[in-house]
Amino acid sequence: MSSPQFATRPGGRTARVRSDVLRATEQELAEHGYESLAIDAVAARSGVHRTTIYRRWKTVDGLLSDLLEAGRDDHWAPADTGSLESDLIALNREVHAALASGPSVTTAVIAASFRTPQAAAALTRFWDDRYERSAVLVTRAAERGEIPADTAAEDVVMAATSPIYHQLVLRRRAMSRADADWLARATAAAAKAGAFAR
Amino acid sequence: MSSPQFATRPGGRTARVRSDVLRATEQELAEHGYESLAIDAVAARSGVHRTTIYRRWKTVDGLLSDLLEAGRDDHWAPADTGSLESDLIALNREVHAALASGPSVTTAVIAASFRTPQAAAALTRFWDDRYERSAVLVTRAAERGEIPADTAAEDVVMAATSPIYHQLVLRRRAMSRADADWLARATAAAAKAGAFAR
Repeated sequence: MSSPQFATRPGGRTARVRSDVLRATEQELAEHGYESLAIDAVAARSGVHRTTIYRRWKTVDGLLSDLLEAGRDDHWAPADTGSLESDLIALNREVHAALASGPSVTTAVIAASFRTPQAAAALTRFWDDRYERSAVLVTRAAERGEIPADTAAEDVVMAATSPIYHQLVLRRRAMSRADADWLARATAAAAKAGAFAR
Repeated sequence: MSSPQFATRPGGRTARVRSDVLRATEQELAEHGYESLAIDAVAARSGVHRTTIYRRWKTVDGLLSDLLEAGRDDHWAPADTGSLESDLIALNREVHAALASGPSVTTAVIAASFRTPQAAAALTRFWDDRYERSAVLVTRAAERGEIPADTAAEDVVMAATSPIYHQLVLRRRAMSRADADWLARATAAAAKAGAFAR
């Protein structure tokens, strides 16, 4: 659920160029935000020639979309901490950290998604992937007998996380990490009470 | 929580101009969406001269922000249907209707909020107002003894509604009205189980 970290990985020159450009994009974003993100600055920071970047990614939104695609390639999985409540707290802390601390890849791509269909589609794919991977923390809890077997996994994950997006991204209101923890606890209690049984 | 309907009301010429312009803005939005919203089209439809509109509202985002402000003036209150579950279902149906059916004022202002601080501030004020007004359905349920007295009212309302925004606006995925109903039922069950007691 968190902002994707683009990790270096083995590969040829093309993979290295992608890695360098995406890392520079992420750093520029973190320092200057989406509104000021510019291909020339990414070129200067990455050491990759601007014509190469324009040819491969075309626009700033192309860079952002590829940054999210790279996030889908990674090995992210929700923490396995032994209980539904603590798993949801770990997840909510990741989401909270990705949204609450200055300009993030996540908020930048959300902004971009209202401008270009490319960014919107990348965001839809990214979240589909992350919600699918997150479902395991609910099925593990069901296997442990913590919650009913017919608990709707994605709804539990969304119940824990979506108020954080709503509060921080859409309402633009403050939310503390303690509030994010509280949401996780409320969701775990609701699931244990059978509120999410389909 | 729904898209604000700008109602005609008594008043002088200034109030009538505002009413005509905002109604035209809402109709243009519904027909053509945010990306195509233009002051000239609003002028043509409302019969108010474009220079008047430019002087008073300046930009398309100014029109949208004022449309939300007008929504705050209205007499909206959540339905009082006799139970927490049916009150939340009524609320979720309003939110679902505002978001799921073509270009809405709500989705347009959300898009605008990522471009101008004016629209972002209008959206924050609008939601603050609507969440504050919605809290009464939770306090009513507590008074009826349906839920614990220390239930966090705004958190219950947000638990019911925020997955609809997340799914339809941010993830850009389908959600049926039956799913919105289900979320309301799950939230009511969770509140009854004490999951939202602070």
